[in-house]
Amino acid sequence: MPDLFEHPWLSGLFGDDEAAYIWSPGAQIGHYLAFEAALARALEAAGRVAPGSGARAAAAIEGFAPDLAGLAAGTAQDGLPVPALVKQLRAAAGEDSAAVHTGSTSQDVLDTALSLTLRAQTDLMLARLARILAALGALEQRFGAAALIGRTRMQAALPITAADRLRSWRAPLADLADALRAERAQVERLQLGGAVGTNAAFGADAGMIAQSMATALGLTRAPHVWHTDRSALVQYGARLSQISGALGKIGQDVCLMALQGIDEIKLAGGGGSSAMPHKSNPILAELLVSLARYNAAQLGGLAQVQLHEQERSGTAWTLEWMLVPPMALSTARSLAAAEALLGQIKRIGPAEPEGGDIDPARRAGPRSGLPEW
Amino acid sequence: MPDLFEHPWLSGLFGDDEAAYIWSPGAQIGHYLAFEAALARALEAAGRVAPGSGARAAAAIEGFAPDLAGLAAGTAQDGLPVPALVKQLRAAAGEDSAAVHTGSTSQDVLDTALSLTLRAQTDLMLARLARILAALGALEQRFGAAALIGRTRMQAALPITAADRLRSWRAPLADLADALRAERAQVERLQLGGAVGTNAAFGADAGMIAQSMATALGLTRAPHVWHTDRSALVQYGARLSQISGALGKIGQDVCLMALQGIDEIKLAGGGGSSAMPHKSNPILAELLVSLARYNAAQLGGLAQVQLHEQERSGTAWTLEWMLVPPMALSTARSLAAAEALLGQIKRIGPAEPEGGDIDPARRAGPRSGLPEW
Amino acid sequence: MPDLFEHPWLSGLFGDDEAAYIWSPGAQIGHYLAFEAALARALEAAGRVAPGSGARAAAAIEGFAPDLAGLAAGTAQDGLPVPALVKQLRAAAGEDSAAVHTGSTSQDVLDTALSLTLRAQTDLMLARLARILAALGALEQRFGAAALIGRTRMQAALPITAADRLRSWRAPLADLADALRAERAQVERLQLGGAVGTNAAFGADAGMIAQSMATALGLTRAPHVWHTDRSALVQYGARLSQISGALGKIGQDVCLMALQGIDEIKLAGGGGSSAMPHKSNPILAELLVSLARYNAAQLGGLAQVQLHEQERSGTAWTLEWMLVPPMALSTARSLAAAEALLGQIKRIGPAEPEGGDIDPARRAGPRSGLPEW
Amino acid sequence: MPDLFEHPWLSGLFGDDEAAYIWSPGAQIGHYLAFEAALARALEAAGRVAPGSGARAAAAIEGFAPDLAGLAAGTAQDGLPVPALVKQLRAAAGEDSAAVHTGSTSQDVLDTALSLTLRAQTDLMLARLARILAALGALEQRFGAAALIGRTRMQAALPITAADRLRSWRAPLADLADALRAERAQVERLQLGGAVGTNAAFGADAGMIAQSMATALGLTRAPHVWHTDRSALVQYGARLSQISGALGKIGQDVCLMALQGIDEIKLAGGGGSSAMPHKSNPILAELLVSLARYNAAQLGGLAQVQLHEQERSGTAWTLEWMLVPPMALSTARSLAAAEALLGQIKRIGPAEPEGGDIDPARRAGPRSGLPEW
Repeated sequence: MPDLFEHPWLSGLFGDDEAAYIWSPGAQIGHYLAFEAALARALEAAGRVAPGSGARAAAAIEGFAPDLAGLAAGTAQDGLPVPALVKQLRAAAGEDSAAVHTGSTSQDVLDTALSLTLRAQTDLMLARLARILAALGALEQRFGAAALIGRTRMQAALPITAADRLRSWRAPLADLADALRAERAQVERLQLGGAVGTNAAFGADAGMIAQSMATALGLTRAPHVWHTDRSALVQYGARLSQISGALGKIGQDVCLMALQGIDEIKLAGGGGSSAMPHKSNPILAELLVSLARYNAAQLGGLAQVQLHEQERSGTAWTLEWMLVPPMALSTARSLAAAEALLGQIKRIGPAEPEGGDIDPARRAGPRSGLPEW
Repeated sequence: MPDLFEHPWLSGLFGDDEAAYIWSPGAQIGHYLAFEAALARALEAAGRVAPGSGARAAAAIEGFAPDLAGLAAGTAQDGLPVPALVKQLRAAAGEDSAAVHTGSTSQDVLDTALSLTLRAQTDLMLARLARILAALGALEQRFGAAALIGRTRMQAALPITAADRLRSWRAPLADLADALRAERAQVERLQLGGAVGTNAAFGADAGMIAQSMATALGLTRAPHVWHTDRSALVQYGARLSQISGALGKIGQDVCLMALQGIDEIKLAGGGGSSAMPHKSNPILAELLVSLARYNAAQLGGLAQVQLHEQERSGTAWTLEWMLVPPMALSTARSLAAAEALLGQIKRIGPAEPEGGDIDPARRAGPRSGLPEW
Repeated sequence: MPDLFEHPWLSGLFGDDEAAYIWSPGAQIGHYLAFEAALARALEAAGRVAPGSGARAAAAIEGFAPDLAGLAAGTAQDGLPVPALVKQLRAAAGEDSAAVHTGSTSQDVLDTALSLTLRAQTDLMLARLARILAALGALEQRFGAAALIGRTRMQAALPITAADRLRSWRAPLADLADALRAERAQVERLQLGGAVGTNAAFGADAGMIAQSMATALGLTRAPHVWHTDRSALVQYGARLSQISGALGKIGQDVCLMALQGIDEIKLAGGGGSSAMPHKSNPILAELLVSLARYNAAQLGGLAQVQLHEQERSGTAWTLEWMLVPPMALSTARSLAAAEALLGQIKRIGPAEPEGGDIDPARRAGPRSGLPEW
Repeated sequence: MPDLFEHPWLSGLFGDDEAAYIWSPGAQIGHYLAFEAALARALEAAGRVAPGSGARAAAAIEGFAPDLAGLAAGTAQDGLPVPALVKQLRAAAGEDSAAVHTGSTSQDVLDTALSLTLRAQTDLMLARLARILAALGALEQRFGAAALIGRTRMQAALPITAADRLRSWRAPLADLADALRAERAQVERLQLGGAVGTNAAFGADAGMIAQSMATALGLTRAPHVWHTDRSALVQYGARLSQISGALGKIGQDVCLMALQGIDEIKLAGGGGSSAMPHKSNPILAELLVSLARYNAAQLGGLAQVQLHEQERSGTAWTLEWMLVPPMALSTARSLAAAEALLGQIKRIGPAEPEGGDIDPARRAGPRSGLPEW
């Protein structure tokens, strides 16, 4: 049961192949190697290793297939895989080993890999957000004129249209897509600080090396080393939670609209019950609520990670590793589930009377004119 | 013990007069009245009440002193004070009562009051952040050259300077001040949606009324009604938590630097103990850690409030009221405490040998040159 | 807005006079003085102060009215009020000042005061739970036979009776009342550890002094000093959250039952709207949900406080002070609100057809016989 | 990176083979089949299926190897695997299919499987706790007399012994082991409620069937159906968090004791750095802190799951699945890590002077006699 996202059967509910790939061990290794290769080339460009040595080391790195058991043993020993990986890479680079990892530190590798991972995560989310926004627009086109009862504090209030509710679903998602785009540069950034965040080992070449690496990796060059400054990551987590939260609101509304007696929505393909074959459960709508509440709780943990003691906190940083990937996967899954759910909508608005549904005119409070405020 | 911020004695630790004023009942009433007065004038400008009526109603509103017991009774009945307040205001407006609250709803009043409150909160935080940034700069001027042992994973790593650590404290705060400024417009915005968020009661005048009110109140006019879209508020809460988190990192570092045996900092005016008069506890530094962890946990609750069902959630909205003010007060207090703490710093770096402190040369790991990476 | 529990008008919704008294500054002072008086007498009984001296000091303590401004100034300086209070008390005790606080430490005072506070809190909760259990029993007597549609995953499933649902509300509350009773001894316990938790200053008399104080205060004598062992407090917080959670489930069910179109419950005295006088909002039911989610989030913070570094953590302990009182007040309020809500119930089950309600026979899924499993 | 517990290399840090087995898909399937087999036999014993039919169905169930792809597809459709599993089992049972799952519901299967899983989890934790308690006792034997500086609020206070600190580590763990044992019966219980929690399909045989199943599965028979009563599960989660919290306190203390300049502990086998080969990082101690803070945050989410709407909440229940397994795995891992960490301790107390450590006599505050309180 632990890994819902890749579980033999729970992945049917929680799984997301595209997001899983982004966070997969293979993708992470790729990012580690990309960092080390970029560093090797940058060291050469800065004249800190002999001409040709950086390029040869980079080539060896890029073609390297790590011994995973060695990384696991190294992680058990060191708390992270980089020392073991660097040892393997240096062995592979042979005479060019001085171009491998020199001047850098484990956190540079792992944080830069995180930046590359979040870039892919953001791409994925933006693509899905765009499709969801389009789907909501199409639903508005199709069902927007349908009459609904606006409900406030769980009580019938005044008439609205389906368009009103659909727009209330759409607006925060459009804003959040804009925010994701605007904040990319703060997240997709190189980490390069060296042992204690001062880049002392690079001397006067630190800026040149960082610029060279950032360019090679397609990342921004952060204005300062962010070994202990995790606010941008907490901020990214806050956006993840906001996205799943906005989708959770949709899911909750759909659950309420699907209640028998309310019947304001019709979904295709609801879930069955082992005891009650007649049921059609709004599985994906429920899932959106669960994922939203999950992410909200995780955010309460993620916000703790800013308390990095001294130049690097083993505790706060390890906590990040536990919290960020599930938040990202949950958000990705909530986007996919929302897209699927919107595709299941066959009707928004009152059921046709011949269908045996309750007369909408009897279903709500005052409709004839607005009350006297 | 409940209200730490205004408690007879715990306010000595947690209290913040400036922030308390911003969130005080009196300030809130002022915002409610400002909303209603702006609406009355806007209704007149839009021709929805007789000429002169809106101005007279606005004047009556602005001079009104509500019966607080009536608001309490109304809140007990209605879950919020606005229906009772509107009743009082209409009575006060007499013949002009049609210019009071017409077309609006309770959430318009309370959410707009929140916007006005957050504007003052942001002003306060930016002023304090500016002073903290200046203080950190001054400390860097004064102590920046002092040698410290860079510590990673709680272990001595390599030499750094006090400037290195001070800059690691400063950078996230400078970024967060920028972010607060950049995001003001998304937070300081009018709420105007009417009963179910459609502004139906204003008809074609809704845009003009909203613009008029936004101008009068010095708020932006949100591109959409945000009755159920709480993402900007969650985002603001995330910034609050990030600010107190960045300050908590400072507090934690100071606690560690002040450990006997480490002695990398000297503070004036530490706290005493009832059992051990010799002690000098780093009270403010500890407080920064507590406030940071507090806010982080609150953020995990605040992120739940996006799940607003239908056109207005009584549950999610009430939850906001419980979470946002303490987060804001905690953040304000953490800024004030940080400013005071920085002012207590008498030394960063090794103690003078004659002072009986341990020889810094004996205190850490390798110092003579950087190791072979 | 900050202190919802004693706010001029929001207390109409959140306030709870009985709980507020339990956590009031006055009650806390009373507990501090009770601790110090018990200690003074115990010191005399153990022969550690001259005969008569402990009794005189205790009398002086019990009649003492602290200077609150002095406590506030002391708290600002020391992070807690006890050093300042002890100074005041010793001045008041004059020649008997050696019987005041000697051998004890601030945490002994504040933690014991917490134990006494939680005793009153538990008494209050148990009394309210008993009334709620009785009210649920009475509702079952009155409406238990009414037919409801059992709903699973927000979908009509199979017929149940009102008794079935009422029992599902009742069972966890009965269990939680039992748990509160069973766990009292672990919570209502003396704290006495002295400066660093070893009671070194009491020498061989530590056990006798602790027993004497525990008896005088009506507390258990914990098997070990719990300065840094906060698990029992986290456990108490978990019970608070479980209680408000069980009540939140009731509130959420009532909100859903009250939906127009569902109409499975009728409440007297719902809340009004500033825009829609016809509405009757289930304010108390919503409040139960908000308080449950609030407490759940707080528990995520409270569980962080176990990480007490060394012999006493200023950070973790201060965090407790921020989290425990609001959780206790919220739980107390949720019990009072639940009791009031149950008293508002005028009907559970289908509305009478003449009342204009929808024919219950049309309202749900299959009713005629159980399906073939 | 998502599944830390079974990740190719991060499992070196986070992985726990014994706990992973308990929560493995294979173990879960085993529990599902055990439930269905017990039900089949109980149906026969109650005379609800023909003699021999229940036994034959149970045999077929117990030997059944599910088609996992089918379960995944079913979970995608239904939100849970049970309907698909039941379909497979009924096909396997052939003529005896009426003895499969009849009268039960998916939640009965999954909740009972959870009970069986938590039984194994508790066994594992109790065994580890016993070893940790023994290890702490042995450390006290070995190093208990060593002098430490008691530190309160991160400041040197008064002398203590290593025994004092070791006992402060041990006491909460001993209490928590007792609590786990005492609360087993509330957790290791059969779930049997049928479609809407009323066991209506079993008629008068419900009690007999439940008793028979509970006996066969070695579970208690809960006094009431707990489909929507999740308080015992939240309570179990609270114990998980308390355990990892008590271990996190140890980890944090060890990190602080290992600081150069403090040097109160010596550990074998610390972790290396990719940049600084001389370092020996207290990886396992840090991990204990991270796991404690992780679990605390999860508990804030878990406490939300009590808000089960109506007879079964798809949202709250799904949220449980996301939160409980990682909490259990984290707690198990923290126990294993703590055991390993205690085994790494080579010294508690001041370093030998010849070892180049700082003279302990210079390291702290007042030592000569207790101060005048």
